[in-house]
Amino acid sequence: MLSVPRLRARRSLASIAVLTSGGDAPGMNAAIRAVVRYAIAHGIEVHGVLRGYSGLIEDSMEPLGAASVANIIQHGGTILKTARSREFLRRAARRAAARNLRARGIEALVVIGGEGSFAGALRLHAETGIAVAGVPATIDNDIAGTEETIGFDTAVNTAVEAIDRIRDTASAHERIFLVEVMGRTSGFIAAHVGIAGGAETILVPERAQSLARVCAAIERGARRGKTSSIIVVAEAGRPGRSAQLARDLARRGYPARVCILGHTQRGGVPSARDRLLGSVLGASAVEALRAGRTSVMAGVQRGRVALVPLARAIGRRRAFPPGPLELAATLAI
Amino acid sequence: MLSVPRLRARRSLASIAVLTSGGDAPGMNAAIRAVVRYAIAHGIEVHGVLRGYSGLIEDSMEPLGAASVANIIQHGGTILKTARSREFLRRAARRAAARNLRARGIEALVVIGGEGSFAGALRLHAETGIAVAGVPATIDNDIAGTEETIGFDTAVNTAVEAIDRIRDTASAHERIFLVEVMGRTSGFIAAHVGIAGGAETILVPERAQSLARVCAAIERGARRGKTSSIIVVAEAGRPGRSAQLARDLARRGYPARVCILGHTQRGGVPSARDRLLGSVLGASAVEALRAGRTSVMAGVQRGRVALVPLARAIGRRRAFPPGPLELAATLAI
Amino acid sequence: MLSVPRLRARRSLASIAVLTSGGDAPGMNAAIRAVVRYAIAHGIEVHGVLRGYSGLIEDSMEPLGAASVANIIQHGGTILKTARSREFLRRAARRAAARNLRARGIEALVVIGGEGSFAGALRLHAETGIAVAGVPATIDNDIAGTEETIGFDTAVNTAVEAIDRIRDTASAHERIFLVEVMGRTSGFIAAHVGIAGGAETILVPERAQSLARVCAAIERGARRGKTSSIIVVAEAGRPGRSAQLARDLARRGYPARVCILGHTQRGGVPSARDRLLGSVLGASAVEALRAGRTSVMAGVQRGRVALVPLARAIGRRRAFPPGPLELAATLAI
Amino acid sequence: MLSVPRLRARRSLASIAVLTSGGDAPGMNAAIRAVVRYAIAHGIEVHGVLRGYSGLIEDSMEPLGAASVANIIQHGGTILKTARSREFLRRAARRAAARNLRARGIEALVVIGGEGSFAGALRLHAETGIAVAGVPATIDNDIAGTEETIGFDTAVNTAVEAIDRIRDTASAHERIFLVEVMGRTSGFIAAHVGIAGGAETILVPERAQSLARVCAAIERGARRGKTSSIIVVAEAGRPGRSAQLARDLARRGYPARVCILGHTQRGGVPSARDRLLGSVLGASAVEALRAGRTSVMAGVQRGRVALVPLARAIGRRRAFPPGPLELAATLAI
Repeated sequence: MLSVPRLRARRSLASIAVLTSGGDAPGMNAAIRAVVRYAIAHGIEVHGVLRGYSGLIEDSMEPLGAASVANIIQHGGTILKTARSREFLRRAARRAAARNLRARGIEALVVIGGEGSFAGALRLHAETGIAVAGVPATIDNDIAGTEETIGFDTAVNTAVEAIDRIRDTASAHERIFLVEVMGRTSGFIAAHVGIAGGAETILVPERAQSLARVCAAIERGARRGKTSSIIVVAEAGRPGRSAQLARDLARRGYPARVCILGHTQRGGVPSARDRLLGSVLGASAVEALRAGRTSVMAGVQRGRVALVPLARAIGRRRAFPPGPLELAATLAI
Repeated sequence: MLSVPRLRARRSLASIAVLTSGGDAPGMNAAIRAVVRYAIAHGIEVHGVLRGYSGLIEDSMEPLGAASVANIIQHGGTILKTARSREFLRRAARRAAARNLRARGIEALVVIGGEGSFAGALRLHAETGIAVAGVPATIDNDIAGTEETIGFDTAVNTAVEAIDRIRDTASAHERIFLVEVMGRTSGFIAAHVGIAGGAETILVPERAQSLARVCAAIERGARRGKTSSIIVVAEAGRPGRSAQLARDLARRGYPARVCILGHTQRGGVPSARDRLLGSVLGASAVEALRAGRTSVMAGVQRGRVALVPLARAIGRRRAFPPGPLELAATLAI
Repeated sequence: MLSVPRLRARRSLASIAVLTSGGDAPGMNAAIRAVVRYAIAHGIEVHGVLRGYSGLIEDSMEPLGAASVANIIQHGGTILKTARSREFLRRAARRAAARNLRARGIEALVVIGGEGSFAGALRLHAETGIAVAGVPATIDNDIAGTEETIGFDTAVNTAVEAIDRIRDTASAHERIFLVEVMGRTSGFIAAHVGIAGGAETILVPERAQSLARVCAAIERGARRGKTSSIIVVAEAGRPGRSAQLARDLARRGYPARVCILGHTQRGGVPSARDRLLGSVLGASAVEALRAGRTSVMAGVQRGRVALVPLARAIGRRRAFPPGPLELAATLAI
Repeated sequence: MLSVPRLRARRSLASIAVLTSGGDAPGMNAAIRAVVRYAIAHGIEVHGVLRGYSGLIEDSMEPLGAASVANIIQHGGTILKTARSREFLRRAARRAAARNLRARGIEALVVIGGEGSFAGALRLHAETGIAVAGVPATIDNDIAGTEETIGFDTAVNTAVEAIDRIRDTASAHERIFLVEVMGRTSGFIAAHVGIAGGAETILVPERAQSLARVCAAIERGARRGKTSSIIVVAEAGRPGRSAQLARDLARRGYPARVCILGHTQRGGVPSARDRLLGSVLGASAVEALRAGRTSVMAGVQRGRVALVPLARAIGRRRAFPPGPLELAATLAI
C-alpha cells in the first residue's frame, strides 16, 4: 500500500501554490485536494492557480481553504482548469510568473502534470529559485522515472469497458473490430487494454508489426474457430490512424469496423487507484517541499513512493517492456 | 408498469422458432429468454435460429430448453447471433426457410429485430402461411407504431455516460466538443442524449440547422459566460459527418474536438428498462401467437403493451416531435 | 418521448421558489435545473429554498441564476438539500413560510418530492393562497396519479447492478441469496428489480406469500437443476426484515445469505431517463404555474405528461398490478 | 507493468489441473483463462476441477481446451465454481485426490485461492508429491508474501462507487453514515476505500479506536462546517458489527445510518487491473511448474511478479502499515 514518505522538515514553509497543466487526467482533483489539505494540516497556506502556467503568468490565483476541496475527489477533470501554455516557453513569462508568486509570499509550486509541465517547472526553478515539486498525472503513463501516473488506471478501465461493449456486437455479428486507444507515442494504454480486454491482437508504436502479420493473426484465429476479433490499436501519435489500417485490411480481404475511443478516455469518475495515487503523491510532493527538496517528482518506483529528480522524467521515453505483448499473444490463442 | 396482455388462447400451438435479425441491441437476450421460457411454460417447444434469416435458410437451428437461456438476461449482444441477410430478399430463399421450419414441425416464428426484419417476416407469412410475430429491438428507436424499442434505453445511457466523461475534459480545457451519436436517419438518440447530457446544442436530421445558427448558439453561450460547450450530433445516415462539421466550425473561428461514440453504443450490459421491455415484449409476442394472431408486433403505445400490425411498422418513419429540441434549447441557457 | 405540455399563459408570473423535500432521489437536480432555467427563459425569477420546508420557515433561500444550476444534471442528491420537516405540520409554521415568500415577492412554489411533501404544499395553498405545483420525485414510485417518479429508474438500475454482482457469487458458490431492496410499503422497486435481475422469486408487500411457498419455489428450481437462487425481498416498511426471513428459511433447511442494499439505492449518477424525466416534469410544473394552474402535480399518465390534481396523489396507494409477478414466476422456470 | 518471469523449463510437463477454492473473487476467470491458454501454448494439457477441493476428491474434472475459456475474462465469479471443503482437511481425502489426478496422468495442480486453499495444497504436495503452485485470489488482500491479490482492486472500486452514491444522500440530508466493508480480520479494503472515498473516519481491526475518539472526530468535522460524514467500518471478523456501533453512537448523541455493503463487493465485472493481475499471475504459476518449481505462489513483491514459497503465505498476517490511516485523517480535515 502506497505511503507518504516521512522526511525531516528542513525549512519552515509558509505558503505554496498548486496548478494542473497539460492534458487533464482523472485523479487530478484527488491530487489537488491532497496538496491543499496536507499543506494546511502542516501549517502551510495554499494558492490555487487557474489554467496552468497561463494563470501563473496572468496572476490568476486564489487562496484555497480545506473546505474548497471538499467533495471533489470523485470528479474527473480539474477544478483548477488546465491548459498548455506556449507563452511560458518564453523566459520573460517565467519571470512574470515568479514575480506574481513572490508578490503573494509564495515560496514553492506544486505542478500536477506531465513531461512538458515538468520541463517548465525545472526552468522556472533554475531561473528564479522558486522551489518546485512535480506530481505525475497523465493517462498515457509514459513518464520516465515512475511506474504509475495519475489517470492511467481510469483510462484503461474506461477503454476496457468500451471493449466489453464492442465485443458483444463483434460476437453477435461475427466481425473484426479495430479499437483505437489513446497513449500519444507510447503503447502502455494499448498493452494494458489489450490484455485486460482479451484482445486478439495489440498494435503499439514500440513494436513494428507488418500488415501481413496482422492478417496472419486474424487467419490463425479463424482457423481455430474464432468468428470475431478485437484488435487494439494505439493511436501512436497519429489519432485516427486506425481508419487507414481498416482500409488496408479491407483490401486484403479482412473487412473491419473502426471504433476510435477518443476523449471519453480522459474524463470520468476516477478509479479508486487513481484517487489513492493522487492522494498519496499529492501529499508526498508537499512533504518533499517541507523537507527542503526541490525539482523532484513524487513518483512510484518498485511499488513504493519515490522522490525522483524531475530531470530524470524529461527528454527520455519510459521503456516499453517486451513481456506484455508476448503474453497477450499467448493468451489470445 | 408494462404487462403482458391476457388473450384467449385460440389455437394449440406446439412449436415455434425465434431469431434475432439486423443490428444487435442490448436486451435482445432478455427477449430471447422470455420467448423461450414463456413458450415452454405454456407447453410450446422452441427452436433457436442462428444468425437471423441466414440460419433459417441454412436450417441452422436447435431446440432451446429453459436452462439454455439461464444467466443471459444481463448480457448484451445476442446468443443467437444476428446478421442482415440479402439472400432472404429472394422468394426462393423464403420458401426454403418455410420448408425447413415445417420439416421440424414449427408453426410460427418470433422475429426480434427492426423494420427490415419485419418486412421479411411479413413476406414469409404472406407467401408461406407461417405465423409471425415481431419484437421491436433496435437502439435507434425509429420504428413506427411503438414508443419504445429494446436497446434504446441502454444506448442512450451509454452515450450520456460518455458525455459525462467528455464534459470533464471540455470543462477543464474550456473547449467545444462535437459528440456524434448513432440513430441512423433519426434523431431520437441524439435528442434524448442531448437533454439528459445537458448539451448546449443538438443536431438531428429531422430539423435542418444552419452552420450560422450553430455558431450563434456557441456565441450566445460564450456571452453568458460558458467556457465550454457540448454539441450532440446525430450521425444522420452519414457516420463520421461530425468531422466535416468540425472543419466548418473551425473555419468560422470555433475550433472543436470530435468524438464519435460509434459501436460502444450498441453493446454492453442492458439497462433494467431494456431487460424489462425485452421480457414483457418477448412474452407478449408468444401470447399473440397463442391467441392465433399473426403479423403483429408486440410494441408500446401510450405506455401500454399493444399488438400492432407489422404493416404499420414498415415503410414509414416514426414521427419526431417538436418539443424536445425546444426544451433542450431552453434548458441550455 | 415526453414533452412539456403547451398551455396558454394566463398570468404574468414574476417570481417563484423551488424546494426539494422528503427523501432525496437521483434526478432531483435535473428537475431543479429545469425549474430554474425554464422559468428564467420565460422571464420569471427563481429562489432556491434550502433543506425543504425547514428552509421556507427559516427564510433560508437565495436567488438562483441560470449559471447556478450549471453542471448539476449529472449529480445525485440535491443541491438544495432536503429534510423532512415536522415543524411544517403546524399551521403557524406554514403562515411564517408564506410571510417569508411574500416578503420576497414570491408568488408560487414548486415542490419536488413525494406524497408527504405534496400534502404540505396543498395545505400551504389552502391556507395562504400561495400557488403550488408538485414534481413527483421518489425512488419508490409509489405516488398515486403518476406512472413514473424521478429517481425510480436509477434506483432500479443500481439494485439490478448489485444483483448482477451477487449472482456471480451465488453461482460460484451455489447458494441462495436474499436481496432486500427499498420501496417503503410498496413493491414496485422489488418487482422491476426482480424481473430485470432474473430473480427466482420476488416478495412484495402487496401479495402475501407464505414461507412454505417460498420454499416450494426453491425446491422446484433445484429439481430443474438450478444450483443457486436469487430472492428479491421488498423492505415492506420493515427495513432489515430479510434477516428474519433468512433465519426462517434456515430453519426449514434452506440456508441463505442476506444482502440489504440500503442507501446505495438512493444516490448515484442519475440515469438518462431520470434526467429526462426531471427536465420535462420540472419545466412542466413551471408551465402549469404560468397557465394559472395551482395544486397540480406534473406527472406521467399513459406515457404522456399530465397535470394531475395534487389531491389525487395524496392519501391513497398506487395500485400494484398483478401481471409482473406472474411474468417473473413464468420467466424464472 | 507486470510481466511473467522467464524461467528455464526444467521438466517436460505434460498435464496439469486447475481449481478455484475459498471465497470467489473477480479476476479468477482471467486467472483460469491464463493458466489454460499459457499451458496449452506450451504443449501442456489442462483439466479444470469443479467446486475446488471437493471436485478433486470426487473426481469432478474435465479437460479444458483453449476455446473453453473464451469470453470469460470479463465475468466475475468463477466458471469452475468454488467451495470450502472440510473434507480435504482429512488425509484420506487428499490421498483420494492424488489418486484421481494420477489416474488421469496429471502431474501438477494450480490452486487459485487464499491462505486456507494454499495450506491444503502444501499438505497435498507433502503427502503425495503432486507439484502445486498458488495464485493469490481474495478480495481481502490479506495474504502474507504478496502486495496484491486478485479481486481486491474490483472490491475496492465497488465499495468506493457505493460510497459515492451514499455521499449524495449523506450530503443532501446532512447525516452521518456508517459504511461497513468486507475484509475479514484485516483492514486493507477499509483503508483503501476510506482514502479513495474521502471518508471522514476509517475503523480497521489493526488499530483500536475508542468510541470517544470517533465522536471527537465527528465533532471536529462539525466545527469545521461539515454537515455530513462518512465513516468506513471494516467488518473485522464480525459482519454486521456496524449496527452495534450505530447504537453506541446514537446513545452519545450522534445518530447514524448504517449501510452494510456485503456480498456486492465479491462479484461484478472485474477491473482492468484484476484482469491483468489474473492473467499475469495465472501464466506465472504455470511457468513456475514448467521450471520444476513447486509449492510456490505467483505473487507481487515490490511491484514485480515474484515466486514466493507457499509456506510464507500461511499462518501469518500481512502487516498493516501505519501510513494510510494517518494520511486519511490528514486529508479529511
